[in-house]
Amino acid sequence: MKYLFLLLIVVSSNAQTKKEQQLSLMPLPQKVVVLNHTFLLTKDFKINISGNPDSRIFKAATVFLRRLDERTGLFFNQGFISKKDEFPEAQLQINCLQKGETGIHDDESYHLSVQSNKIQIEATNDLGALHALETLSQLLQNNRTSFYFPSVVIEDKPRFSWRGLMIDGSRHFQPVNVIKRNLDGMAAVKMNVFHWHLADDQGWRIEIKKHPKLTELASNGSFYTQEEIKEVVKYADEKGIMVVPEIDVPGHASAILTAYPEIGSRLSGEEPYAVEIRSGIHNPALDPSNPLTYQILSEIFDEVCPLFPGPYFHIGGDENNGKEWDANHKIQKFKRKNHLETNHDLQTYFNLKLVPMLEKHGKKLMGWEEIMTKEMPKNAVIHSWRGVNEGLEPGASLVKAVKNGYKTVLSNGYYIDLMLGVDSHYLNDPMPENVVLTQEEKAGILGGEATMWSELVTPLTIDSRIWPRTAAIAERLWSNDTVTNLESMHKRLKQISFRLEEIGLTHIRNKQVILRNISNYQDTQSLNDFTNICEPYKIYKRNGGGKKYMMYSPLTLFADACTADAADAYEFNKAVKNYLENKELVNQKIVTDYLKKWIAMDLDLTRLSANAPLIQPVLPMSNNLSKVSGLLLQTIENKRNISKAYLNELLEQFNIRNPADVELAVYDSLKKLAE
Amino acid sequence: MKYLFLLLIVVSSNAQTKKEQQLSLMPLPQKVVVLNHTFLLTKDFKINISGNPDSRIFKAATVFLRRLDERTGLFFNQGFISKKDEFPEAQLQINCLQKGETGIHDDESYHLSVQSNKIQIEATNDLGALHALETLSQLLQNNRTSFYFPSVVIEDKPRFSWRGLMIDGSRHFQPVNVIKRNLDGMAAVKMNVFHWHLADDQGWRIEIKKHPKLTELASNGSFYTQEEIKEVVKYADEKGIMVVPEIDVPGHASAILTAYPEIGSRLSGEEPYAVEIRSGIHNPALDPSNPLTYQILSEIFDEVCPLFPGPYFHIGGDENNGKEWDANHKIQKFKRKNHLETNHDLQTYFNLKLVPMLEKHGKKLMGWEEIMTKEMPKNAVIHSWRGVNEGLEPGASLVKAVKNGYKTVLSNGYYIDLMLGVDSHYLNDPMPENVVLTQEEKAGILGGEATMWSELVTPLTIDSRIWPRTAAIAERLWSNDTVTNLESMHKRLKQISFRLEEIGLTHIRNKQVILRNISNYQDTQSLNDFTNICEPYKIYKRNGGGKKYMMYSPLTLFADACTADAADAYEFNKAVKNYLENKELVNQKIVTDYLKKWIAMDLDLTRLSANAPLIQPVLPMSNNLSKVSGLLLQTIENKRNISKAYLNELLEQFNIRNPADVELAVYDSLKKLAE
Repeated sequence: MKYLFLLLIVVSSNAQTKKEQQLSLMPLPQKVVVLNHTFLLTKDFKINISGNPDSRIFKAATVFLRRLDERTGLFFNQGFISKKDEFPEAQLQINCLQKGETGIHDDESYHLSVQSNKIQIEATNDLGALHALETLSQLLQNNRTSFYFPSVVIEDKPRFSWRGLMIDGSRHFQPVNVIKRNLDGMAAVKMNVFHWHLADDQGWRIEIKKHPKLTELASNGSFYTQEEIKEVVKYADEKGIMVVPEIDVPGHASAILTAYPEIGSRLSGEEPYAVEIRSGIHNPALDPSNPLTYQILSEIFDEVCPLFPGPYFHIGGDENNGKEWDANHKIQKFKRKNHLETNHDLQTYFNLKLVPMLEKHGKKLMGWEEIMTKEMPKNAVIHSWRGVNEGLEPGASLVKAVKNGYKTVLSNGYYIDLMLGVDSHYLNDPMPENVVLTQEEKAGILGGEATMWSELVTPLTIDSRIWPRTAAIAERLWSNDTVTNLESMHKRLKQISFRLEEIGLTHIRNKQVILRNISNYQDTQSLNDFTNICEPYKIYKRNGGGKKYMMYSPLTLFADACTADAADAYEFNKAVKNYLENKELVNQKIVTDYLKKWIAMDLDLTRLSANAPLIQPVLPMSNNLSKVSGLLLQTIENKRNISKAYLNELLEQFNIRNPADVELAVYDSLKKLAE
Repeated sequence: MKYLFLLLIVVSSNAQTKKEQQLSLMPLPQKVVVLNHTFLLTKDFKINISGNPDSRIFKAATVFLRRLDERTGLFFNQGFISKKDEFPEAQLQINCLQKGETGIHDDESYHLSVQSNKIQIEATNDLGALHALETLSQLLQNNRTSFYFPSVVIEDKPRFSWRGLMIDGSRHFQPVNVIKRNLDGMAAVKMNVFHWHLADDQGWRIEIKKHPKLTELASNGSFYTQEEIKEVVKYADEKGIMVVPEIDVPGHASAILTAYPEIGSRLSGEEPYAVEIRSGIHNPALDPSNPLTYQILSEIFDEVCPLFPGPYFHIGGDENNGKEWDANHKIQKFKRKNHLETNHDLQTYFNLKLVPMLEKHGKKLMGWEEIMTKEMPKNAVIHSWRGVNEGLEPGASLVKAVKNGYKTVLSNGYYIDLMLGVDSHYLNDPMPENVVLTQEEKAGILGGEATMWSELVTPLTIDSRIWPRTAAIAERLWSNDTVTNLESMHKRLKQISFRLEEIGLTHIRNKQVILRNISNYQDTQSLNDFTNICEPYKIYKRNGGGKKYMMYSPLTLFADACTADAADAYEFNKAVKNYLENKELVNQKIVTDYLKKWIAMDLDLTRLSANAPLIQPVLPMSNNLSKVSGLLLQTIENKRNISKAYLNELLEQFNIRNPADVELAVYDSLKKLAE
């Protein structure tokens, strides 16, 4: 149906009207005015570029047009957009005043106006125009026969300047095509910083020509060549994304020390260094008392820095447990000689020696919060990450950083590897509550970064762990701080998830690949139903203290087909809530339909398991759920008495660790029904 | 259930026993003996390499182990296999006498023996060992709780030495990750030649440092850098695959001439050359009378040849319609001066000048069959491709080539872009029937190549057009010529298709992405049902003479979700055949169940189309099918009289071109039911 807009509706960023709610925009723009007509798309739709933009706008406009063609099947006549001012009568006009500079300092604002016969994008520079095109593509709507844009006027700009995603290419190597499609995903939700974690205990992932041993001995053959690095940096820049490389030192050093044991802190005669195959915090640490350490790092930085045009270089600096330092008498002697009382002081000594190595290349040092000491130069960026899981107050380092004059980026609360629900990430705001900050201190909070640690993710599953939750984090970092409505976010996120698939992300399609493998190519419907109510164990539980999964262990199991925010769990939880508030039949039926579905699902899984060993680990949970469902049906539908004790005994089973490494996401609601 | 083998069954390559039939091996090995026990897989399963193999065996063994781990979830203790003779007690022993040489000349045989506690691979060299590992991975079986290999003794070697796949990277650019996953697919079915079509009218796809204009002006930004070429060649070599580059000259030249119009045959003052956006045979041709043509080609070859270690270089040479030559008086004068009577003679003159350019780099010239003339040196390889669609006798050029002392490769009958059924490709044998050839002539038939022309394929759809049909072609080229049973092939192909998905091919998973787009993210079940009885228009019909699709037109439509060999059509056709032979109720029900399914499907598609413009083009066909199904149900189930004339009128509708670009694959069976 065509929308009939009878009123001019002005929307402030504090609330969403019904019309704005029907738009699935994420991040929500600062200001959206919905008007009363539509712009109809036809095959004659053309794009024209004017003004003074960077050349990247031409590629972006072409990609936009082709994606629109793929969604609408309209067969646009226009092929490639490559010349300025080529079609002054084109329906979509993009005008940029100047060239934009990728990074966190330039203007990213835009003005988007959709009228019934014309669309206008005005931006200070092409960065804003790129953002406008992403917004426009999210505006697409349709009726039975046509595609169109609703007429709107949008003014938009980001709240935070650092809106990042970190991908760990070390624990599980992520090839270039994986990186590129995730850069596309970032651009789709207006993220602008890609933090590339390139070295860790489990692998050194970047070619260093002067030190070929690093990849020869410490990469198991999986690493990025310098050409590939350049290709990714160029690709990112075309989408307005700055790349920040990370070489994590002095801890997390198993890989670099496998290649160069001579700069390690382990005493000779001890077990030789080897590339780590397990997760966790490991002992290997660089020797800060050895001049060779600094020589090699300097030579590495000399090669890595020129590959990255951005001004930031991340040196890691986290989780150095100091054990190797404590056990090494030479290092202890060095500490005493240099009046370095603690390991923290020694690490500071080490970090400070890296600063000029990077400054030489025009890079500012960035590091995880452990680098924050009195002597650290104020232009270092502090990456705040520790919180409850580390026994510390979340965001404490963030406040400490800005109060001490540093710039800081928040990742605590955006640890997407922990498989927490999107709500927790969405409501996690970089601006601390209950703390008074000056304007300058507030300006020191640059933004945040979602961190995709890859101990348990492979190219097959990584997109499902990043998306769609990171789109909600992107909104937190772009949109106004009053945009916090969870129901609206969930509704829009569902649509955005489909947009992300269309641009090439595999978070939806790859699940079926895993399910087909698990079901041994029998029907996957029941398995799919089960994944929709299970979530992988959260935080660090799945890996059982780093003991269960080696870096080469299989990640094609039921838990890998599950994601955070199990789809049916969200719906079931709502249904149970409604039912418990109002037990009328229509509410009851929604609940009992799920219970019946799970009983049938269990029968089916049991049947299929006769020919599918990988279904076996999920059967105990499925069987138990079937029993619980049966009992609940008796009491809800048949109004029979049941043994509450037995029911609760069955429910308790869900709290015992099961071999499928997943938790039942509808557990709480079942408990409520069982009361 | 464990298999109980009571007898020792010796199987010759002429027939398959029941036990062998339960194995889903493709290509079928030369000799398979199935024994009476099984090898149980546990997490202690290890691999050991011994002998004198090329280092590629270590990577291949590691990949094999990891894939096995992903399929079984056994958590194998062994990580990376990197040292020879590391585990002399390992259950899987791989022994190679010597290093293998990638190409078409080396021994590729292997001996695979699976016993109850040991697996032995013996091969002359690592090429055979690689093949053995692929066979072994296809042998995997399971019962309810365990995975195992059946005990077998297999001796195997290929029938033909040239077992190729050509990918056209020009019409639609195919990025490196697409090429690599298809190399994986090729290796899985023991193919060993990758023919890379790098330049054509629609785009020049390879970086030439001395001539940057080629990519700057004629690639629309999509091309392979020389580093990427090297990376792909290395990746292919690790899998025992030889890469043959193709630069198609002197026709198919729109792209090269966009960069270098000065070496074209168009007269000045005429329309300037431009990268072609349409399919078909185009006029642009290089000027063979201009010395600059040869200079530039020589410089291009000087850069391209060293990137490819194999001995063959394909210069194309097809479909030069001669129009530009005929219209150019200078060229006509040149012909007369050099006593070259026809355009064919002139092209031969041109081709012969290329020979020393390639010989300089140790390359033998290969070209499409049009290059075959008296003067062409006998070490040129003739690529036989023309047949019925070109108004010629299929395979005629093949026979002519070997009778004239050439080596030849067959692609006619393996044109997988034409969307023909797998049966036609499977039964197409490179050895001509009804022709008497000497042993030497037979040896001149090196093998065959499936050709993936990409006018209508993108990275999203290409795998579904190559696989799984190319696996059947791989069997034709590897297995004995008596292996021709269609039912066995179809049964095994279904399993092999799943194996191909597991190693990374997207032919199954990407269909759902397209369907979700078409259904506008509503339910896709009915669309999926419809794709299972429709096939894209075959041969050159879909593109309507090259007029419908430009190179940038959308290929995310219903026809792109369909493939050759529509899955339900195969089953329905069998069901109708059975029913017409024997009209008992059980056979009738299978048929009528489909008819009812299609009536419900049409209702559902009509409902969904209210919110999905991309469903509209399939509705006429779906509606019509529903009507036909309804009438057939009346006569089959209800034994009512219906108007045969009306029914046939409805059936005739399917013969009119519909906007969905697909044909109804169950049409013939419906016609039979309507008689």
